[in-house]
Amino acid sequence: MRINQIKLAIIGVGYVGLPIALKFGQVFDTLGFDIDKFKIKNLKNKQDINKEFTKKEFIKSKKLLFSDKLQDLKDRNVFIVCIPTPINKKKEPDLDLIYSSCKIICKVLKPKDLIIFESTFYPGLTEEVLIPFIEKNSQINNAKEKNKPNKHFYIGYSPERINPGDKKHNIENINKIISSNNKYALSLMKKIYSKIINAQLIEVSSIKVAEAAKVIENTQRDINIALINEFSQIFKQLKIDTEEVLKAAESKWNFLKFKPGFVGGHCIGVDPYYLSHKSLQSGYKPKILLTGRKINDQMPLRVFNEIIALSKIKKINLYKSNLLIIGATFKENVSDTRNSKVFDLIKLFKKYHANIYIYDPHIKYLNLKNLKLINNLKSNYYDVIVYAVDHKIFKKIKSSKIKEISKDNSIIYDLKYALDKKIVDLRL
Amino acid sequence: MRINQIKLAIIGVGYVGLPIALKFGQVFDTLGFDIDKFKIKNLKNKQDINKEFTKKEFIKSKKLLFSDKLQDLKDRNVFIVCIPTPINKKKEPDLDLIYSSCKIICKVLKPKDLIIFESTFYPGLTEEVLIPFIEKNSQINNAKEKNKPNKHFYIGYSPERINPGDKKHNIENINKIISSNNKYALSLMKKIYSKIINAQLIEVSSIKVAEAAKVIENTQRDINIALINEFSQIFKQLKIDTEEVLKAAESKWNFLKFKPGFVGGHCIGVDPYYLSHKSLQSGYKPKILLTGRKINDQMPLRVFNEIIALSKIKKINLYKSNLLIIGATFKENVSDTRNSKVFDLIKLFKKYHANIYIYDPHIKYLNLKNLKLINNLKSNYYDVIVYAVDHKIFKKIKSSKIKEISKDNSIIYDLKYALDKKIVDLRL
Repeated sequence: MRINQIKLAIIGVGYVGLPIALKFGQVFDTLGFDIDKFKIKNLKNKQDINKEFTKKEFIKSKKLLFSDKLQDLKDRNVFIVCIPTPINKKKEPDLDLIYSSCKIICKVLKPKDLIIFESTFYPGLTEEVLIPFIEKNSQINNAKEKNKPNKHFYIGYSPERINPGDKKHNIENINKIISSNNKYALSLMKKIYSKIINAQLIEVSSIKVAEAAKVIENTQRDINIALINEFSQIFKQLKIDTEEVLKAAESKWNFLKFKPGFVGGHCIGVDPYYLSHKSLQSGYKPKILLTGRKINDQMPLRVFNEIIALSKIKKINLYKSNLLIIGATFKENVSDTRNSKVFDLIKLFKKYHANIYIYDPHIKYLNLKNLKLINNLKSNYYDVIVYAVDHKIFKKIKSSKIKEISKDNSIIYDLKYALDKKIVDLRL
Repeated sequence: MRINQIKLAIIGVGYVGLPIALKFGQVFDTLGFDIDKFKIKNLKNKQDINKEFTKKEFIKSKKLLFSDKLQDLKDRNVFIVCIPTPINKKKEPDLDLIYSSCKIICKVLKPKDLIIFESTFYPGLTEEVLIPFIEKNSQINNAKEKNKPNKHFYIGYSPERINPGDKKHNIENINKIISSNNKYALSLMKKIYSKIINAQLIEVSSIKVAEAAKVIENTQRDINIALINEFSQIFKQLKIDTEEVLKAAESKWNFLKFKPGFVGGHCIGVDPYYLSHKSLQSGYKPKILLTGRKINDQMPLRVFNEIIALSKIKKINLYKSNLLIIGATFKENVSDTRNSKVFDLIKLFKKYHANIYIYDPHIKYLNLKNLKLINNLKSNYYDVIVYAVDHKIFKKIKSSKIKEISKDNSIIYDLKYALDKKIVDLRL
């Protein structure tokens, strides 16, 4: 395939796929495909509902079109899959979305087409599961003959390193891992990605290595946060201020600056389960990986318990009380609320029939009953205030404001070391 | 106390105390004290048996003297304790050495003297244990009156951050935490340390905070290495090369560059037990801390098991075989063998009655039976070779040399990704 023959399809244009589509659309004939009709409608109007990209960036991406229709995929020859890989309730890999996208691609796959996966996988998923799946589900020349990898179609894996909300690290300047089980496919990937990436393309010897590299990146972050969460638990027992300890330790040249807190989102809290899943399959039960996950997953419960304990001391009746959450996205400066641990905390208050108010200007809409998304804060009104996400836009919220809106006898929990220590009742 | 009245004693002049004594001896009247007569004899001759410091550095330290005699401590007014805080066989803090040094100090303590601890402690050790101990064991004006802290003596805590073998980070340029429970003592510490430190002095609000900051520094390192060790275990199961995965992951801007391997020495593998001890006392059983420790402590066994398994496949009889260990210190470029995990590995070979040879030019002397410290490597001689420590001086050892000295049917285990992958049988 020559470079001018390339017709890209980006399958899934969410937090990961959209920036990739916008970038590729500056260079290649690109189609952003998604089954979410509402999303596609907005994108066609050059509107990113996640507010990560402005109209300007859509205009710059001259060769990019969007569609939710299968037929528009038929002339595509390179498919880049940017589909989430979440976990199910049992905390095991939920591959339904990946299978669905593969099925869609199978319907339009032509000889010599290339499929590149950018999603986070466990090592072996591409070659042991997805290639056989595509082989089985696609038909090429006639109904009898099955597609063969590296004969009728090619596969590549190049894990995304998109960091939503991060303006410093973007597609052009992040080194990108590329891998394939086929030389031709790898050279084609190199041609394609080198058109949009100024940083290095890191070629690795196998797809498994690339899958492994991706899955450990966020796992490392998860464990480091879990460790700091454990420190903060220990120091709470010892009546030592964790923030002061961390600041002191950070004065050493090689101390790593992690903070305690909730670990939500689609990557850091999820990827370790992908690696664990494969590890368990291979006969090794991960120890530190799952310990870290457990600590981080229990953080909402820990915060809840601390609030309950203090409410008893302060004689605050939480039944039908007013609970205010400041910031409810899964991390700062994004609008994404999926997998935000704030909602795990909120659920724990259910039995108190509390009035739960969420103040987060990044969130335009919340599809949850019993929650009130508010734009204005009431004075002397809230029994419990949890400062949960440290959005830049909150820099204006002074500690005096928090003091003003809370009742005289109230509990203020600062999860982010953002407020004046003196007005705060609880911190990690 | 005025600055020109200060007479320092550094209690314990080993890996930590000696550099501190040498530095202070450039400025203050300083006595390096140790109960190890052999060490003191060498130091008086301006000889560091650990080869960290040259004669030149002793000459520069004009105001430094050494002694092993109690009477020489009598005119000292500031005592800086640089005594190791190891663990016992149960992996609990072993404070015997600290108690002994406190007892020595108690014998010479005069009113208004200052004792500064630089050793690694768990939070609370200074104030809950050592201050009462000194109070009880020292007598000041007369036999009836006990010394009172902040009346008769002062206490400070300023944890050392010495990194043996590291020429880049030294006392002058490492930020130093200082703490005391007394303002006068803290201001005196500031005066003293600012004379030798160009970097920042970090004042914290309590001794407990300083103790906590120190103990988490190495704990963080321990956990990060444990995580990489777990990755390498998982990837071994999956037949993926860990080094390649790590290199690929390191191409991401925020991936932390740790390597798998043995964790020995007096800090990284020890400090987490200090924190755990105190945490358990307070009622919280550490999860991630102890999981990390377990993984790292089991590394010698894992390496041993892999060698045994491969010896069966390769039909190498390990009974009375020749086992060569290349590098046996607890880390690279130092001569210290204490707590080196290499010896844990060696012990496991005991039942095979193997001839165990150690090649490590950094080690001048080894007080262990059944081990042969060798200077020359024999050709075609070794059944098992473990490349265990990556000293700079080993850069000359080419992979071809390793190939030459090993028998045709042999096992070469490279613990450090230092040798050519092609000649190596096993890696982490």
